[in-house]
Amino acid sequence: MIKTIDDYINIVGEPVISEIFKKASKLYGKHLLMVNSTFIGGGVAEILNSLIPLMNNISVDTGWRVLHGNPSFYEVTKKIHNALQSADIDITEDEKKLYLDVNESFASYTHIDHDFVVVHDPQPLPLIRHYQKKNSWAWRCHIDLSNPQPKLWEFLKKYILRYDVMIVSSESYVKKDIPIPQKIIHPAIDPLSLKNQSLNPDLISSLIRDAGIPTDKPLITQVSRMDQWKDPEGLLDVYQRVKEKIDCRLLYCYNLATDDPEGMDIFNKIKRKAKTFEKQDVLFVMGSNDCLVNAVYSVSDVIIQKSIKEGFCLCVTEAMWKSKPVVASNCGGIPLQIKDGKNGFLLDPLDYQGFAERIIEILQNKSLAIKLGENAKKSVTEKFLTTRLLSQYLDLLQEWC
Amino acid sequence: MIKTIDDYINIVGEPVISEIFKKASKLYGKHLLMVNSTFIGGGVAEILNSLIPLMNNISVDTGWRVLHGNPSFYEVTKKIHNALQSADIDITEDEKKLYLDVNESFASYTHIDHDFVVVHDPQPLPLIRHYQKKNSWAWRCHIDLSNPQPKLWEFLKKYILRYDVMIVSSESYVKKDIPIPQKIIHPAIDPLSLKNQSLNPDLISSLIRDAGIPTDKPLITQVSRMDQWKDPEGLLDVYQRVKEKIDCRLLYCYNLATDDPEGMDIFNKIKRKAKTFEKQDVLFVMGSNDCLVNAVYSVSDVIIQKSIKEGFCLCVTEAMWKSKPVVASNCGGIPLQIKDGKNGFLLDPLDYQGFAERIIEILQNKSLAIKLGENAKKSVTEKFLTTRLLSQYLDLLQEWC
Repeated sequence: MIKTIDDYINIVGEPVISEIFKKASKLYGKHLLMVNSTFIGGGVAEILNSLIPLMNNISVDTGWRVLHGNPSFYEVTKKIHNALQSADIDITEDEKKLYLDVNESFASYTHIDHDFVVVHDPQPLPLIRHYQKKNSWAWRCHIDLSNPQPKLWEFLKKYILRYDVMIVSSESYVKKDIPIPQKIIHPAIDPLSLKNQSLNPDLISSLIRDAGIPTDKPLITQVSRMDQWKDPEGLLDVYQRVKEKIDCRLLYCYNLATDDPEGMDIFNKIKRKAKTFEKQDVLFVMGSNDCLVNAVYSVSDVIIQKSIKEGFCLCVTEAMWKSKPVVASNCGGIPLQIKDGKNGFLLDPLDYQGFAERIIEILQNKSLAIKLGENAKKSVTEKFLTTRLLSQYLDLLQEWC
Repeated sequence: MIKTIDDYINIVGEPVISEIFKKASKLYGKHLLMVNSTFIGGGVAEILNSLIPLMNNISVDTGWRVLHGNPSFYEVTKKIHNALQSADIDITEDEKKLYLDVNESFASYTHIDHDFVVVHDPQPLPLIRHYQKKNSWAWRCHIDLSNPQPKLWEFLKKYILRYDVMIVSSESYVKKDIPIPQKIIHPAIDPLSLKNQSLNPDLISSLIRDAGIPTDKPLITQVSRMDQWKDPEGLLDVYQRVKEKIDCRLLYCYNLATDDPEGMDIFNKIKRKAKTFEKQDVLFVMGSNDCLVNAVYSVSDVIIQKSIKEGFCLCVTEAMWKSKPVVASNCGGIPLQIKDGKNGFLLDPLDYQGFAERIIEILQNKSLAIKLGENAKKSVTEKFLTTRLLSQYLDLLQEWC
């Protein structure tokens, strides 16, 4: 079950793996720690699930701690997440207290003597204030920071300043008012995970059949969290426009993370709206089974990503890795991945008509679909696989240990 | 927010606290680690949430790691849990493989160099085989082990034998076929947790009102997981018998743990059955808010615990701590807590008529209710508070470090 670095040779080539070993050999004996807020659900957990065992496999000891929250805490941190992505939400003093208290309590039994500590996202950000920092700490933020709510930003900055380095996912998230060094590291996907590996066609068919997904009409799919930032209402609007020209289906392969209490409300709202369409034409499938998500990508004709805000958007990376034509919003890290017209299509998030036209174009032009898909897979192989991320973490360790 | 040992002086008295410090002083510099499978939901998480910060507060460094599972893993470990409690379930080879693989993966990034490791319950039991054991390891099993499914027991024994000591909750769970030392430690509750501390009467009223619980009829309450072992159908049967004599309500204050996928099915089944009663006479309230559970105990007239199997049954301890008369099944750890007729009533789990009669007796005799409640609180104070548990862990460390 545990993958080894050798398993990646056939995908990325021997020079890449050899370079990784060269970097790792300078770091033997160092001890790294990753801290985040969930071990299941969401892109960060996926990255860490693939990266951390690989770090240990190449003998760079890397631990992983997950903050122990509770439902009220996750409600507050969801608000913080949204406000960092520019939503005009005020975090109350009581909420701030809960946020800090949970971190304090976790720190009381979490003894950190590692050489380098990487704290992911805002949930465990304040942890640092409970340690006598003899080691180096990085804050790795996976969120779109281009326009954070100002009051919240001032509050969080106090904790960010204690770190040695801050890591963001895109040049546009670098903050002018943070005096610590800032690095840009793009996330990556694991080509060998259950979600991304090549599946046997029979398995694909049986998974799709068991999930009740008919395949007798073209299939437009969005794979994402059930979240306001993924614009589920806009997605339905786009689908309606496509549907007027081509008889097709929309599949929302959704995800509810354990730290996202907001998702359920949005889900109920969007399901009511979807009822205006013919039954079986708008489908909701829970994407908690990675194998099923993999199969869903495989049988889809177009992948849409109708997000308004994104950190990096690994769902786009996954779809591109599957050689699928992707029509996506020009926001967050998506333009880092899609070059419009070359390996997918980019649109203004509010250009519903444009989205619909591109999808129709792809559905009507098979050779365009194939060309976009092939280019998509090529660019992911070059830039967005976990081995590249691993290599960059080794550089970071080298610099800061 | 973090409680200190000093906060317990007024509850258990100075000699108890002084003894704890005396024991702790011999252990400074030792490093203990607790490993379990959830940080929220269920009795084990509650015990650790109270015990671990206190251990650190008295300067015995104690870490806490939570195994990183996934939904399929939790389904398997729920089966293992049930089969250990005698259910005739076969664990398939694939399920065993998943169980072992999740442990192997967790071990790959969990570096353990502590002096003493306490592994709780079967989920992380096989972890031990991935370490070169230079330290002492204890397996702390919170489950009723009196009659485990034989094939599963043979499978798990291979891992248990690697431990230095096994800890169970009751004399009757000691296993003759395990050649390692076995200790008995009763669990305990934290008198200062949100669930157990004294609440202001105004807060109680507003919590109960907000939860939609009417208080104009006598209230019989069961607080427990939604689980077959809590016999929800038997509970309804007993209530029906009481209801024929006294107009009263039944409140099921239930809990769904993150590692319990089975709960939802049982919940739906029992809700359908409850519909045969008058609306508002059988109430279901989600007990995820500890403050609300606290208020629920406070306004209940009788607490029932209709379990078929129990490890120790902390819900009984909590109710007794609230000076409530408890009518409970004579199973698992319950007879360790309740002396029939003195500080509550004990009944055969299948004696539905007996349950009903005892409840009627209490509802009709206020001075009996008060006497049972007072004796209940006294016995919990003497035997089942977290300070006693802390003290026993210090003894264990002293012996094994």
